[in-house]
Amino acid sequence: MTPLETVNEFIRRMTDMDLDRACELVTGDVEYDNVPMGKNHGPEGIQEILGPMVDALDEVEWIIHNETASGNLVMNERSDRFRLGDKWMTLPVAGVFELNDDGKITLWRDYFDVGTFNTEMARLMEQP
Amino acid sequence: MTPLETVNEFIRRMTDMDLDRACELVTGDVEYDNVPMGKNHGPEGIQEILGPMVDALDEVEWIIHNETASGNLVMNERSDRFRLGDKWMTLPVAGVFELNDDGKITLWRDYFDVGTFNTEMARLMEQP
Repeated sequence: MTPLETVNEFIRRMTDMDLDRACELVTGDVEYDNVPMGKNHGPEGIQEILGPMVDALDEVEWIIHNETASGNLVMNERSDRFRLGDKWMTLPVAGVFELNDDGKITLWRDYFDVGTFNTEMARLMEQP
Repeated sequence: MTPLETVNEFIRRMTDMDLDRACELVTGDVEYDNVPMGKNHGPEGIQEILGPMVDALDEVEWIIHNETASGNLVMNERSDRFRLGDKWMTLPVAGVFELNDDGKITLWRDYFDVGTFNTEMARLMEQP
């Protein structure tokens, strides 16, 4: 797989809510950087952040609007969508990925607005 | 100039605080989208948002950490730095640019955290 194909396969596994298979595509020391929130490391860092979210949600869909790649660098522009019951939330995200020469993801850095994330997540979790 | 060169020249003119010359590189109907804050249009939309900021600041420096281009699409990852007196603030940004076939910028979309921007700008503007 090219770096771009690997990133897209990673996102496919994420949206299948299959974190274990997604994490097969990252290195043991991957840096997972949610820019305004902070960094986590390793597949266990990804699982720690996203595991509880995936467990709580009913469906995940990330729409890729634009993507570019240059060497081992991939950037994409996404609408990350999450469903709980019959409610959806959408988070606009720009992502940066770096891969090593073995085709594994060593860096995943997402740019987004924390206020949007918190407001939308609260609306999603609200009891009807 | 290639699309990537045009975007970098645009940023050079921005950091020279020369909005007029920067806006020579955009189309009359350019979309300027500060994702969590909203969209503005045209060179006058860019001037309206950034003019007062540039007037108030002493120095602007945007460090490009990563950049990729594919056709008329350019994406970059930046630290946008602003100085007032002897204080600097830094805003982490991911930018998306689309150009038309004449090499003018038709879309400039920046992803960042509004909370970080507001907190840092307040710190910058604080009287000593």
